[in-house]
Amino acid sequence: MKKLHFVAAAVIGLASALPAAAQFQKPEDAIKYRQSAMTLIGAHFGRIAAMAQGKIPFDAKTAAENAALVDTLVHLPFAAFGEGTERGAPTQAKPEIWKEPAKFKSAAEKLQEEVGKLNVAAKTGSLDAIKGAVGGVGKACKACHDDFRSKEFTSN
Amino acid sequence: MKKLHFVAAAVIGLASALPAAAQFQKPEDAIKYRQSAMTLIGAHFGRIAAMAQGKIPFDAKTAAENAALVDTLVHLPFAAFGEGTERGAPTQAKPEIWKEPAKFKSAAEKLQEEVGKLNVAAKTGSLDAIKGAVGGVGKACKACHDDFRSKEFTSN
Repeated sequence: MKKLHFVAAAVIGLASALPAAAQFQKPEDAIKYRQSAMTLIGAHFGRIAAMAQGKIPFDAKTAAENAALVDTLVHLPFAAFGEGTERGAPTQAKPEIWKEPAKFKSAAEKLQEEVGKLNVAAKTGSLDAIKGAVGGVGKACKACHDDFRSKEFTSN
Repeated sequence: MKKLHFVAAAVIGLASALPAAAQFQKPEDAIKYRQSAMTLIGAHFGRIAAMAQGKIPFDAKTAAENAALVDTLVHLPFAAFGEGTERGAPTQAKPEIWKEPAKFKSAAEKLQEEVGKLNVAAKTGSLDAIKGAVGGVGKACKACHDDFRSKEFTSN
């Protein structure tokens, strides 16, 4: 694959003001940043999903706090997939992210939309509402990972 | 160093409700989580610091957004230094974190306090106020890193 020169400002513009502010000195900084954001999203969404699946006791306050946090975090990683960040550190990002940017953007926005719904559901304190919304978020995660995330890490 | 059995629930209780909800299946999950949180804190604080240092143009809205985000993120990593997470993945965490928990807790709370001040300062839109608060956060980062973070990563 052609290795593109990294342009710090050339981020894929995805909703929200925060990502627009994202700038990275080196491709590896962007890769580490987006992986870190995904790790936190997974950890905190996982706590709500575990409640929805009955693996841990349901606690409405904890669910709501985690949902609000995920709704903040989910706006972070996508600004770190700028051109030139395909390589630079071990990454699971597929080339399709940069080959089909509109499709990737759409998948990211779908996730953000579903997480927004989860945040609303969690504020109601209804476990049934949360269960439905968790399902929507889970599907959005999986759809994007199926298309845009490799199972294996690729190094430089 | 004696390797302690990992107890998922035994986290160092540090302020805020979110960390109290933190639970990790394996020590490496906690290590990855806290490193991820620190990466995001560094990235977003770095954007404000760069403005304070005149390295990038000052933009009050961007500074305020980043400060609010850091004020959320700074409450995350410290719940992931529970007993048994000294080892399990490459880490820069020094044994002193677990030998001197009160000192570590105090250093973490100092950081949270200084980030709170930065968030207040950033909302005013005053670059001078931000510069002062950035200095306070920077000192708190450094003090804790000097005492509790190794320069090198230690593996299992």
